[in-house]
Amino acid sequence: MAFLEKLKEFDIPTCLRVCAGTDGSVTFLLEIMTRNDVSVITENQHVVKADNEMASVLGVNPDEDVNLRTVTLMAGDVEYVHATSMSPLSRMPPGMQQDLMRADIPIGKILRNHGIETRRDFETIRLDNGEDLFGCHKVLSRTYRIMHHGYTLMWIKESFPVDERWNL
Amino acid sequence: MAFLEKLKEFDIPTCLRVCAGTDGSVTFLLEIMTRNDVSVITENQHVVKADNEMASVLGVNPDEDVNLRTVTLMAGDVEYVHATSMSPLSRMPPGMQQDLMRADIPIGKILRNHGIETRRDFETIRLDNGEDLFGCHKVLSRTYRIMHHGYTLMWIKESFPVDERWNL
Repeated sequence: MAFLEKLKEFDIPTCLRVCAGTDGSVTFLLEIMTRNDVSVITENQHVVKADNEMASVLGVNPDEDVNLRTVTLMAGDVEYVHATSMSPLSRMPPGMQQDLMRADIPIGKILRNHGIETRRDFETIRLDNGEDLFGCHKVLSRTYRIMHHGYTLMWIKESFPVDERWNL
Repeated sequence: MAFLEKLKEFDIPTCLRVCAGTDGSVTFLLEIMTRNDVSVITENQHVVKADNEMASVLGVNPDEDVNLRTVTLMAGDVEYVHATSMSPLSRMPPGMQQDLMRADIPIGKILRNHGIETRRDFETIRLDNGEDLFGCHKVLSRTYRIMHHGYTLMWIKESFPVDERWNL
């Protein structure tokens, strides 16, 4: 798989490579790695009508309702992950919509609380210099989809600062 | 969740804690951690009629066909995981049965190749002294289920040697 091959080539801390390469919950991994509680700080959360680009990425009709959410994942008082997600409201199982819109609950826990069966499909991964994320100028980012009933339940972009905070 | 709380308390190498705590593919994580190819060595694979205990664990009728598989996961030439699985044949999506029974393909890749949506439910985790696994006398083991369409597609027990091979 191209995604994993590319990731294996990056010379970055092992725990970062693991978080960026898992097909499971990133929050769980952070919690296990740091042995600390993970908190979700919501920067932004609102519902928009899909424009043409969003509709194409998500495979929905333009003007459908889509939940946009941008959060930071912290373990203890350290920032580890910046994540943006797009989720068509029509595809969310009952109850999930409220959890996603209401509070600072991580995606992994929302899926687990509702017993939702999924598959995570990797898309892209890249390493950039010069951006700033949590005081770091080297940033690893990846995009992937959480699939449910054969459709995209959620499209996610995660960015990780590449520095010694991952030496866990 | 009791499982994760317990795991967080164990004083073991971080990469081992991560492999034992992921709700995603262990093979992928091993590949990413070691930056090496992972191979599956099948020790044993055969179909049996479920006895009462297996039927109860899997939620099937006694005498139903169940695939038993015992494998070792290696990265490069190092042994990392010993895994035993039980899977009712009747619950496998078409094509999966052949992959599981035929060859040394890791579970994560089988699920991915067939686009199967799942949820992994943790059961138990424990640390034992005195057993021998891959030349190590301290062994971490966990059990969990891979759920599909609301039923147990696979019950898995994984054992990990607790030593410096996890300092990755």
